[in-house]
Amino acid sequence: MEKERLRCPALEAKIATAEEAALFIKDGDTVATSGFTPSGYPKAVPLALAERVKNGEKIEITLITGASVGSELDGILAETGIVKRRFPYQTNNSMRKAINKGDIQYADMHLSHVPQFIDYGFFGKIDVAIIEAIAITEEGHIIPSTSVGVSPQAVANAEKVIVEINTSQSLALEGVHDIYMTKKPPFREPIPIVHSGDRIGTPYIVCGSDKIVAIVETDITDKVRPLGAVDEDSKKISEHIIKFFEAEVEAGRLPENLLPLQSGVGSVANAVLAGLVDSKFEDLTCYTEVIQDSMFDLIDAGKVTVASGTSFTPSEEGLVRLNENMEKYVKHCVLRPMEISNHPEVARRLGVLALNTAIEIDIYGHVNSTNIMGSRMMNGLGGSGDFTRNAYISIFTTVSTAKNGDISSIVPKVSHCDHTEHDVQVVVSEIGLADLRGLSPRERARAIIENCAHPDYRPMLLDYLERAEQTPFKHEPHLLDEALSWHARFLATGTMKPKVEKQA
Amino acid sequence: MEKERLRCPALEAKIATAEEAALFIKDGDTVATSGFTPSGYPKAVPLALAERVKNGEKIEITLITGASVGSELDGILAETGIVKRRFPYQTNNSMRKAINKGDIQYADMHLSHVPQFIDYGFFGKIDVAIIEAIAITEEGHIIPSTSVGVSPQAVANAEKVIVEINTSQSLALEGVHDIYMTKKPPFREPIPIVHSGDRIGTPYIVCGSDKIVAIVETDITDKVRPLGAVDEDSKKISEHIIKFFEAEVEAGRLPENLLPLQSGVGSVANAVLAGLVDSKFEDLTCYTEVIQDSMFDLIDAGKVTVASGTSFTPSEEGLVRLNENMEKYVKHCVLRPMEISNHPEVARRLGVLALNTAIEIDIYGHVNSTNIMGSRMMNGLGGSGDFTRNAYISIFTTVSTAKNGDISSIVPKVSHCDHTEHDVQVVVSEIGLADLRGLSPRERARAIIENCAHPDYRPMLLDYLERAEQTPFKHEPHLLDEALSWHARFLATGTMKPKVEKQA
Repeated sequence: MEKERLRCPALEAKIATAEEAALFIKDGDTVATSGFTPSGYPKAVPLALAERVKNGEKIEITLITGASVGSELDGILAETGIVKRRFPYQTNNSMRKAINKGDIQYADMHLSHVPQFIDYGFFGKIDVAIIEAIAITEEGHIIPSTSVGVSPQAVANAEKVIVEINTSQSLALEGVHDIYMTKKPPFREPIPIVHSGDRIGTPYIVCGSDKIVAIVETDITDKVRPLGAVDEDSKKISEHIIKFFEAEVEAGRLPENLLPLQSGVGSVANAVLAGLVDSKFEDLTCYTEVIQDSMFDLIDAGKVTVASGTSFTPSEEGLVRLNENMEKYVKHCVLRPMEISNHPEVARRLGVLALNTAIEIDIYGHVNSTNIMGSRMMNGLGGSGDFTRNAYISIFTTVSTAKNGDISSIVPKVSHCDHTEHDVQVVVSEIGLADLRGLSPRERARAIIENCAHPDYRPMLLDYLERAEQTPFKHEPHLLDEALSWHARFLATGTMKPKVEKQA
Repeated sequence: MEKERLRCPALEAKIATAEEAALFIKDGDTVATSGFTPSGYPKAVPLALAERVKNGEKIEITLITGASVGSELDGILAETGIVKRRFPYQTNNSMRKAINKGDIQYADMHLSHVPQFIDYGFFGKIDVAIIEAIAITEEGHIIPSTSVGVSPQAVANAEKVIVEINTSQSLALEGVHDIYMTKKPPFREPIPIVHSGDRIGTPYIVCGSDKIVAIVETDITDKVRPLGAVDEDSKKISEHIIKFFEAEVEAGRLPENLLPLQSGVGSVANAVLAGLVDSKFEDLTCYTEVIQDSMFDLIDAGKVTVASGTSFTPSEEGLVRLNENMEKYVKHCVLRPMEISNHPEVARRLGVLALNTAIEIDIYGHVNSTNIMGSRMMNGLGGSGDFTRNAYISIFTTVSTAKNGDISSIVPKVSHCDHTEHDVQVVVSEIGLADLRGLSPRERARAIIENCAHPDYRPMLLDYLERAEQTPFKHEPHLLDEALSWHARFLATGTMKPKVEKQA
């Protein structure tokens, strides 16, 4: 192994094959790993673990990660039946299938809760941590790769630590990380971040050579996810938001360079940020979870001075671009533990402008981020709740319809609630923007229906609202027999649109 | 007026009758007042305002308070049609009726959001602040009475300030308040509280004599609300919680003197705290919203060293007791602005043990705190969301049935969602306690049904769950046609119990 990658000579004795390292994992273990939105997750050791099961061994584990991880971890371990319990977020197809089949016990959590759940012992003992790294320092500390996630707490609490040194990950990442750990109550202190770019910790995860049981070298690349091209709908959503920001600046409610932007994961979130490249805004900052491709555009355009997150989450093209220009991007970026990137304290202090995507939003402003038709887990909540409730302004975006128009993303009542009416201040679709601040539920309903709902569903939504308003209790009126009937109709007929009576 | 009450001679010219002071309020104004859980709210001026309308004037206002206020403010202004828009919480019968009739546009908000909504200008201009005080200082600063609530932001942002000096409120309250204001982003700094009792501000609300337009003397007492006697159900809930805390201490997950307790408003919350008097716990601290009667018991028993809140919320007997022993209780208590008492940053740092009451809880752990049968506004969310999501452990309590058993408080799906599954870690009823940490939705369902549901409803709940588990998507399975049918049945028949077929 290169001396630059393993700088602690005493640890050379711990160099192992993936197969040898995987032997440290026992049936019944709780395993916590690096990885966040398929970035910087361990690959060689989980693949080797799966081989043992393919060869007939029985191994069942609880798997805790930062957020989503790739096929070499979530995919293969779900397919081989190794994962029995999974926290707190996933996007892998095999994992999702197993969860929706009921084979894997999955708890979808606020990402900022996960590190403290580990620290508090609420998950029980952490047997093994597997951490992808670019290098190990002279003192046996770990320099993570493209994400930090829950790794610092995994390392601090695990009995055994396995490190995957991934040579496909650039050594130029060194210095981008800022690792700060909180103490447990009653000894916690203020987190001293007052600007998005403040560095308050160490550039490595404190570990020490004693705790490391195996070091595996690998060059398997992150299976990053493609980002959709910026489509017409995303572009319109982005334009509505930029217009809204301009009006808020005009009204004196936002500074000219706005406040730190937080933007969710995925194509729409990426497209919304991309829209800022051509806006008049300058000197923007970001305090968010993931640094996606459009952030590189914003940095290149000189629009963003600093972006704080817990992972680089580029597309395949973005990954090439990141690696080719690492020294430049590292200067403008900070990768923090997800406890800090998503911390309510910091989000509220900085006053983030929170931009998150919804699966569906109801007329009163409740948001479903996770379960399609109430029960079908998509990915998970992620950090949306961490930011939303602590935002300066909390904005949710959704394209007004899905499935070629057969699903309205604006519904009478969400089939699953992840964000309540109390946490949603602005709703945006490609149709328009509804500013809900200061509105009562029924006023919100009209604002959302008129500004955000698709014209095909607008009359149906208004009809629902008007009939609900005839019931005795008019604060947030509902027709309980009908409130979820749009979803039931979709499940039964494949469309939320009512059956049209055929006339002779 | 006594010199001790009005210490700024320049302000003597501003002494006015309630009728004169009320003339500063114009039709269309936004009025922000003191008051929190009918404590420390203005009374004389609103009564005089109502008189003007009774005499034929047209006055319509937006009313913002800290939390609930008494009949002399919410009651009379709702009855006379003066309040058109109301933020963020209420418990008054006339106000509640008008909201549920749809006559008043009410937005139920996280209490910690209200102060920053005022500071950010999201409510528009604040025309008038009316603040109940025990005294005005030499510099024209305001010493509040039994609550702080949103008063500091109301004063800072209002164009005109009216002060009600209430001589029924003890001057011995002086020194109990700790007024700290946050700056607006991007200039916010850490709030330097690391222990519940830390004092970080001033004992008065900064105002200055220029801003005060009128000073009214009154002796109308707070219309405090009675607290129910500690009943059997509350006692059992309290016992389950204490047993849980003991086990957590035993497991090393909580310190011996626990962590700061946060407890909601009302009889059950009061009873739960009361149970601690006979527990083995010592040196307890509280970081909460309201200081109710049982807190005095805990202080008297030497169990609680310090209680931080934003108001004294005693019963009638409690109020007498508070006034008779003010000097003692003031030593153990701190009253803060509700921005600070409810601040996510501080709640999470201290690691509060959050105890809040639910109207209903569903099998997967979602909580309805506000709307009975989905639409009938009870009071509001209050600070439950501020504490819950930032708690060390978030606990919700509910008595397993209501309306003589015709309502099950455990339901297949909540009819309104205020707290999501991601925010609820422990559910307690008089039947027992369900620890949901680390459980998947279906595991949570069995834990809640078995431990918390009333035996009359347990088989129905299990039946729902088991049939839902037959659907294709089993992460958090629901029968959408049936999910809200229990509520619909109650509305139609007066009971959630199914009609029993009469047999011959």
